[in-house]
Amino acid sequence: MALSDGPVLALVGATGAVGTTMIDIIDSRESVPWGEIRLIASARSAGKVLRVRGEDVTVLELKPEVFDGVDVAMFDVPDEVSAEWAPIAAERGAVAVDNSGAFRMDPDVPLVVPEVNADKVTDRPKGIIANPNCTTLSMMAAMGALHREFDLQSLVVASYQAASGAGQPGIDQLYAEIAALAGRRVGIVSGDIATVLADAGVAVGSEAGSPFPAPLALNVVPWAGSLKEDGWASEELKVRNESRKILGIPELKVSATCVRVPVVTTHALSIHATFGRDVSVDAARKVLGEQPTIVVKDDPAAGEWPTPADTVGGEPTVVGRIRQALDFPNTLELFVCGDNLRKGAALNTYEVAETVAAAG
Amino acid sequence: MALSDGPVLALVGATGAVGTTMIDIIDSRESVPWGEIRLIASARSAGKVLRVRGEDVTVLELKPEVFDGVDVAMFDVPDEVSAEWAPIAAERGAVAVDNSGAFRMDPDVPLVVPEVNADKVTDRPKGIIANPNCTTLSMMAAMGALHREFDLQSLVVASYQAASGAGQPGIDQLYAEIAALAGRRVGIVSGDIATVLADAGVAVGSEAGSPFPAPLALNVVPWAGSLKEDGWASEELKVRNESRKILGIPELKVSATCVRVPVVTTHALSIHATFGRDVSVDAARKVLGEQPTIVVKDDPAAGEWPTPADTVGGEPTVVGRIRQALDFPNTLELFVCGDNLRKGAALNTYEVAETVAAAG
Repeated sequence: MALSDGPVLALVGATGAVGTTMIDIIDSRESVPWGEIRLIASARSAGKVLRVRGEDVTVLELKPEVFDGVDVAMFDVPDEVSAEWAPIAAERGAVAVDNSGAFRMDPDVPLVVPEVNADKVTDRPKGIIANPNCTTLSMMAAMGALHREFDLQSLVVASYQAASGAGQPGIDQLYAEIAALAGRRVGIVSGDIATVLADAGVAVGSEAGSPFPAPLALNVVPWAGSLKEDGWASEELKVRNESRKILGIPELKVSATCVRVPVVTTHALSIHATFGRDVSVDAARKVLGEQPTIVVKDDPAAGEWPTPADTVGGEPTVVGRIRQALDFPNTLELFVCGDNLRKGAALNTYEVAETVAAAG
Repeated sequence: MALSDGPVLALVGATGAVGTTMIDIIDSRESVPWGEIRLIASARSAGKVLRVRGEDVTVLELKPEVFDGVDVAMFDVPDEVSAEWAPIAAERGAVAVDNSGAFRMDPDVPLVVPEVNADKVTDRPKGIIANPNCTTLSMMAAMGALHREFDLQSLVVASYQAASGAGQPGIDQLYAEIAALAGRRVGIVSGDIATVLADAGVAVGSEAGSPFPAPLALNVVPWAGSLKEDGWASEELKVRNESRKILGIPELKVSATCVRVPVVTTHALSIHATFGRDVSVDAARKVLGEQPTIVVKDDPAAGEWPTPADTVGGEPTVVGRIRQALDFPNTLELFVCGDNLRKGAALNTYEVAETVAAAG
C-alpha cells in the first residue's frame, strides 16, 4: 500500500491476534509517517485482503524478497519464526522490531519501551530491536517514571494475566469454556469444571489441545510459559530479566508470580515496589499523573481503581490502589492494568517502529 | 437434635452459605462429640427443617433462651448480629465461636487457627473465641508451620479471592453474570461487559445491588471490604492484623493487596515470605508435607500446582509453586489455595468448636 514518499513499514504476522490489533492501531492514528505498509504472513494466510487506513492490502507470503525496500519490519510471530526471519529482514536493510522472545536478552539487541529508553533504538548492531514480554510491558511505563524520580530497588509482583496472552487460541478457549459452563452451578466440588467442559467437548489441558494447562473459566492457574530451573516459569524470569534490562538496573531485585485469570484481554499486576529515595503516595501520584501514556485512577471512595474490563481496548496504562506499605520503608503498593494486545504488544512495537522512523 | 449425652452445639446462621457448608462438614465427620445440635437463624428462616446427620432438625429463631444449655455456639452471621448476640450466648453459658469480624482484634478474644494456636481456646475472658477472616485463614496453617521452623519476618501477599467470600449473594451474582455473558465476544472494549450485563438486567455495581463494586465475570476487581485510612481496603488490613495476632508476631511486616476474581469458591494467595533463619525449598516442602491439614502439590513438570478448581470442596490447604526468591535472601514464593467456605470459614469454626469441647 503506497501512502506517500515516506519510509516503508512491514508487518509480519498480520493475521494473528496481535497483528489484527496492530492494524487497528495503525488505522486509529491521525497520521502515519509511512510511504507504504506491507502486510506479510505465512503461506496459509497469504493472498487475504485486509483493509488498512481505508485501502485494500493483499497479504504477502513471508519470503526474503518481501523485505527489499522495507525500512522497518515489525514481527508478531512465534519465537522460532522471528529467530529465522528477523535477521533476514535486517540483512535486506530493514530494522526489525520483534515482539517475540527470540532476541530480548541478546546483549546486541536493545529492548525498548519508548517512555523509558527510546534513546536505545539507534544502538542496534544486529539491525534488530526487541519488544518486551507483555507482562513486563504492562508495568514498565509506570516503573520507569517512578524509577527516574525515586530510584527503584526491588519489585515483588503477582500477575493477573488475560487469556489473549496466549493469542487468538487463548481467547477462543476462554469463550468456549464460558459458553459450556453458563447456567451450570459448578466450581463447588474439586474437578467439576473439568468434567463439565470435557462432557461438552471443550478441550481441558494442554494435552487435549487447550492453550492452557488447566480450565481457565471460573478458575485461576498459577502458570504461564515453560518450566525453567528451580521451579520458575519462563514468564516469571522474563519479568525479572527484562525489567532489569529495560530500566537499566542490572542489580534490580525482582520476584514475580505469574497467574492466568479468566479475563479476555488486559493484564493486571499487583506490585510491591521499594525505592532508594524517600517516596510518598502523593509524590508518586504526581509523577505518574504527568506521564502522557499513564492514567491514574485511584479514588476508592468513588469506586475508582483499575480493572481489566475498564482498561481493555485503550492505549494507556492505568494505575491505582497506590498505598504506602505500612511496614516497609519507601515502599509503595500499586495495581496496574494494561491492554496486553496493545501496550503489551502491538502498540509498543508500533511506537518503537515510529521512533525508529523518526530517528532516521 | 439429640445424639447422645455429649455437649450441646448450636449453629447460628444455619441457612447461609457458610452455615450450609457447616452442616455438610458436620455430616461428613465420622463421629461428632455432640449430644445435641441446635440450628438457629433469623425469624425469616426459622421453622425450616434441615437434615443433619440423618435426622430432621427444625431451625429455631434467634432468641436469648435458645442458648440455654448450649455448650458451644458457632456464629456465621454479619458483624452486627454477632456483636449483639455472641455476648448473649456467652452470658447464657455457651462458648461463642464467632466467624464475623466483630471480635477478632479484641484483646480479650483469642483468634484461633487450631493448627497454629489451639492452646489459646481456653484463654477466653469474654466467653468468645473469634475465627479469622477467610483470606487470612487460607494461608495460616502453612505460614504457622513455616514460622515454627524458620522464624517468619515478613509477608507480601496478593490475593485471588472467590465470589463466595461475599456469601450466597456473591455466588448468585457471578453465576448470573456468566450466564448473561456466555456466547458474547465481550471484554474487548472498555465497559462492554457492564453494558451487556445491564442490558440483560443483571446488577452492575454496589448501587445497583450487586455484592461487587464492578462486574466480576471476565474481570478482576482490586477491592474487598470497606475503605480504611490511606487508601487501604479493610480486607487488606485484616490480613495484616489477624496474621500478627494468630502467629503471635506483633511486629510481623505485612503488605497485602486483595483482589476479587471470577471464581465461585476457593481463595488463592501469592505469597512472598521472608524468614529470619535459613530456609530452602526442600526444607519448606518437608515441613509443609508433614502437616496433617496441608497438601503439597508442586510439580510443574507434571502440571501439578494448586488451583481453585482442584481445591474447592476439600478440607486441606493446597500449597505449591514453592520457589526460593532469586534476589531476596531467606525468602520463599508460594501459591496457596484454600476453600474459603470450608477452611476459610465453616471448617475452622467447627474445628475450634471441637477443640473447645475437647478442652472441656
